[in-house]
Amino acid sequence: MAQYSTVLDGVLDGVFVALADPTRRAVLRRLGRGPASVGDLASEAPMTLPSFMKHVRVLESNGLIRTAKSGRVRTCELNRERFALVDDWLAEQRNSWADRTDRLERFVTTPQEKEKQ
Amino acid sequence: MAQYSTVLDGVLDGVFVALADPTRRAVLRRLGRGPASVGDLASEAPMTLPSFMKHVRVLESNGLIRTAKSGRVRTCELNRERFALVDDWLAEQRNSWADRTDRLERFVTTPQEKEKQ
Repeated sequence: MAQYSTVLDGVLDGVFVALADPTRRAVLRRLGRGPASVGDLASEAPMTLPSFMKHVRVLESNGLIRTAKSGRVRTCELNRERFALVDDWLAEQRNSWADRTDRLERFVTTPQEKEKQ
Repeated sequence: MAQYSTVLDGVLDGVFVALADPTRRAVLRRLGRGPASVGDLASEAPMTLPSFMKHVRVLESNGLIRTAKSGRVRTCELNRERFALVDDWLAEQRNSWADRTDRLERFVTTPQEKEKQ
């Protein structure tokens, strides 16, 4: 079953963990429309600010968002490139399904082709 | 930030949790090439059978694989439809980014168009 615990595997683990929460997915969806302050984001979430900050940290530590502090305001911004890792992983799965379908087709059609000759 | 804890959110949480592990992703990759018995899958994983079975159960309970027992052999099969949920979620994010780019373009180009007239 190939390699375990490569660097990419570690990164993918973190990205999928970060995506496995409705609050964090809601933050990503909101940031897709443009940067926002932690205060504004938190005001829309049904939880305390410390609880919300934990979600922000999970998203930031796994590279899905970037944050920057100016004075007392911390602004969050989406890191779109990180989503490409998930795209790539999904594409890799679909390619292997396509390969299998191709092999099955060759297996099924080849004997029939021979009979025709 | 819209709805929290919808049914779809619960399903997506589980799917992303299931994907957040290199052993489980390796099983999905292997099953992309066709069904396989738990015994064969486990023989390629560097862990005990009980530990491996936990991963199989996480994949099955979150709908990414189906398993069926015939005699003493349990066979696993990929449930490709479940991957569409992740595709849809990613597409939804990208659509919101595209909407934002469109709005920015309209904002930037509209005053210039007026000047030309």
